[in-house]
Amino acid sequence: MKFCPSCGNTVTHRVPKGDNRNRYICDNCDEIHYQNPRIITGTLPLHEDRVLLCRRAIAPRKNFWTLPAGFLENGETSEQGAIRETMEEAKAEVNVHSLYTLYNLPHISQIYMFYRAELKDLNFSPGIESLEVRLFSESEIPWTELAFPVINNTLAHYFSDRKTQVYPTHVEDIIINR
Amino acid sequence: MKFCPSCGNTVTHRVPKGDNRNRYICDNCDEIHYQNPRIITGTLPLHEDRVLLCRRAIAPRKNFWTLPAGFLENGETSEQGAIRETMEEAKAEVNVHSLYTLYNLPHISQIYMFYRAELKDLNFSPGIESLEVRLFSESEIPWTELAFPVINNTLAHYFSDRKTQVYPTHVEDIIINR
Repeated sequence: MKFCPSCGNTVTHRVPKGDNRNRYICDNCDEIHYQNPRIITGTLPLHEDRVLLCRRAIAPRKNFWTLPAGFLENGETSEQGAIRETMEEAKAEVNVHSLYTLYNLPHISQIYMFYRAELKDLNFSPGIESLEVRLFSESEIPWTELAFPVINNTLAHYFSDRKTQVYPTHVEDIIINR
Repeated sequence: MKFCPSCGNTVTHRVPKGDNRNRYICDNCDEIHYQNPRIITGTLPLHEDRVLLCRRAIAPRKNFWTLPAGFLENGETSEQGAIRETMEEAKAEVNVHSLYTLYNLPHISQIYMFYRAELKDLNFSPGIESLEVRLFSESEIPWTELAFPVINNTLAHYFSDRKTQVYPTHVEDIIINR
């Protein structure tokens, strides 16, 4: 940030009075422009013993497999966002069970949330950000071709929890020092 | 937003190509400035059979009782943010158990997260945003003087779950039509 979104003047990155972190502060109108982590929300779409994955059509990690997910929008709940992203990326309708995994990624100031969900039917196809969408049984999961650690971890939790049919909410941090 | 934070020119609120929502787009450099929900993280600080609450020194809901919580900062996990806010608002150190409640508030584009936590000791006192900090037993909770619905609901879940000593993660939406 170089300019104030409110008045268009320059900003300075400094610690406001009564604060202890650098913020972008307008040199003219004194408005403080906070920047905060963003939420990515998606689903673990299930059909009988298989899981739906999407092969990414876009960077980062183009060609790698992912669960349908994307940035939560203003004015929607994390569950609504997860359902919307599943439609956008996999053209699939789901019934959501419950929040299944939540990952903190502080090195990129993101929180990922995945909901366990059931496909309503077998009508699915690649959305604009996907090259391919298909169902995988546990033995078919392309573990070395998954796009992000949050995908590996969510799938690993699922195949483990499935043995007992108990699906608590898993909350974990993914710490990558940069 | 009226001006581009990157180049200082005017922005227009319109739907970018390939998108379906209005975004702030720079009239000069074409950068799209997304706006997303923010996360508020805090704790439910416990000591034996009592819960710590803070009386708010600031708007909104000045003088009402709340759990220590505040905006998650870039570069920290939701648990780290919850511990930090508990220190800032109640000068209290806690050991965190687990994520206990998560609330979507889509009308204000916020997500609240509260962690169940134990006070490490009885050293606590009001931080700059609190007028008073004290422990309440269940019968002492000032139900009609709580600051926000997320506080009522988190406390209600706790006193209910305490009977069975089972504390799952509760995920709920608070829908207020405006």
